Amino acid sequence: MDRSAEFRRWKAQYLSKVDLSRKGSLDEDIVELVQVLNQQEEFFTTSSCSGRIVLLDGGINGFEVQKQNCCWLLVTHKPCVKEDVIAALKKVNGDAILKFEPFVLHVQCQQLQDAQILAVRSTHGLEVPLSHKGKPMVTEEYIDFVLNIANQKMEENKKRIERFYSCLQHALERETTTNSHPKVKNTSLYTHKKKRNPEKAQGKCIKEKNGKELENDDDDDDPGLSSTIFPEDYSI
Amino acid sequence: MDRSAEFRRWKAQYLSKVDLSRKGSLDEDIVELVQVLNQQEEFFTTSSCSGRIVLLDGGINGFEVQKQNCCWLLVTHKPCVKEDVIAALKKVNGDAILKFEPFVLHVQCQQLQDAQILAVRSTHGLEVPLSHKGKPMVTEEYIDFVLNIANQKMEENKKRIERFYSCLQHALERETTTNSHPKVKNTSLYTHKKKRNPEKAQGKCIKEKNGKELENDDDDDDPGLSSTIFPEDYSI
Repeated sequence: MDRSAEFRRWKAQYLSKVDLSRKGSLDEDIVELVQVLNQQEEFFTTSSCSGRIVLLDGGINGFEVQKQNCCWLLVTHKPCVKEDVIAALKKVNGDAILKFEPFVLHVQCQQLQDAQILAVRSTHGLEVPLSHKGKPMVTEEYIDFVLNIANQKMEENKKRIERFYSCLQHALERETTTNSHPKVKNTSLYTHKKKRNPEKAQGKCIKEKNGKELENDDDDDDPGLSSTIFPEDYSI
Repeated sequence: MDRSAEFRRWKAQYLSKVDLSRKGSLDEDIVELVQVLNQQEEFFTTSSCSGRIVLLDGGINGFEVQKQNCCWLLVTHKPCVKEDVIAALKKVNGDAILKFEPFVLHVQCQQLQDAQILAVRSTHGLEVPLSHKGKPMVTEEYIDFVLNIANQKMEENKKRIERFYSCLQHALERETTTNSHPKVKNTSLYTHKKKRNPEKAQGKCIKEKNGKELENDDDDDDPGLSSTIFPEDYSI
């Protein structure tokens, strides 16, 4: 079987599987985007999340949350009210953490040169410990304050999904027009960032990591997302 | 000029530049690692940070920190004591955020197949708002609590750097032995993760994102880092 046929077989097998996520379905805000990607011969998505606010009970071991041990007290893909967090916190026995986790998308691709959109992550996050061994460490006022920030990030995240979707559609249209495989240079979903200063130097310590260097760009058309390749996802 | 010569010229030019980071030098914990990478013909580093605890004054616009506006109240690449944070907080006029930012490394590579180590990011972070418009939003006890977590993350981060460095050295040794370019399959610094469950399904919402899916792996030799390609860093 040639590589192209093998990829098609693999994709068909993958997409026919039952969705084993806790939620069991695609997040509403990215259904279209995921479908558009999966309609492309050379891509398929393996995991995605539109972005969410999560309250975790990290257990008695504190913040080294083990996937298998941690308990989700609250998960929402929409803005969240303080009362929900305060009610959920009452169930905490261990160390609770409030997190905002932005849009993430993992995409398999047939060829390495398509890998520029193999995975997309925005790093516009928030991770705030709220309680320790069941005891609240912050006030209700603080929870309200932090939740406002998380909700703002959720709104901003939604705009970024829209921008990314729009850029993706343009890139795919260009590809159809030229009827060739995307090249790294001409179908990039990202724009080079105009640097205020020539900051590229050996070993420089990046200012404003965790997405800020992507967020605060001069380019209005910068979707503010980084592209990630996970070696374990390689399809070649 | 052929591509290989062009890459060498570009690398030489890059590494001869003055380090324009705020700190102006490589972080102590990754000096050797960066030097080893830069000794390789096919790689050079463009930015790095060994991991740090940062206290930022996000200004009056709240948490949409603008790189050009934000003020660093405290930066340390070593564990940090509560007193330093409390003293620094007294200088805050806007919204202060305490962050732990893990090891990050951006690497240029000559060929796309080497791109598996083009950039390395660990997502073991923390981002905690502490004050609003200059007013503290948390207690000293909470600052102490959060700082303990940040310091634990700093320790864990250091172990990860060591593991990554060790894996890198092994990969480079293997490359020297075979005297050929690394292939995606055989020089991966990462191991495939053994899944407890067949979780790969279309559109699954990833459990424990932000590095947790990498941290809590069954494989002891998983360095717990993800590899990132930033399109703007493409050298081809």
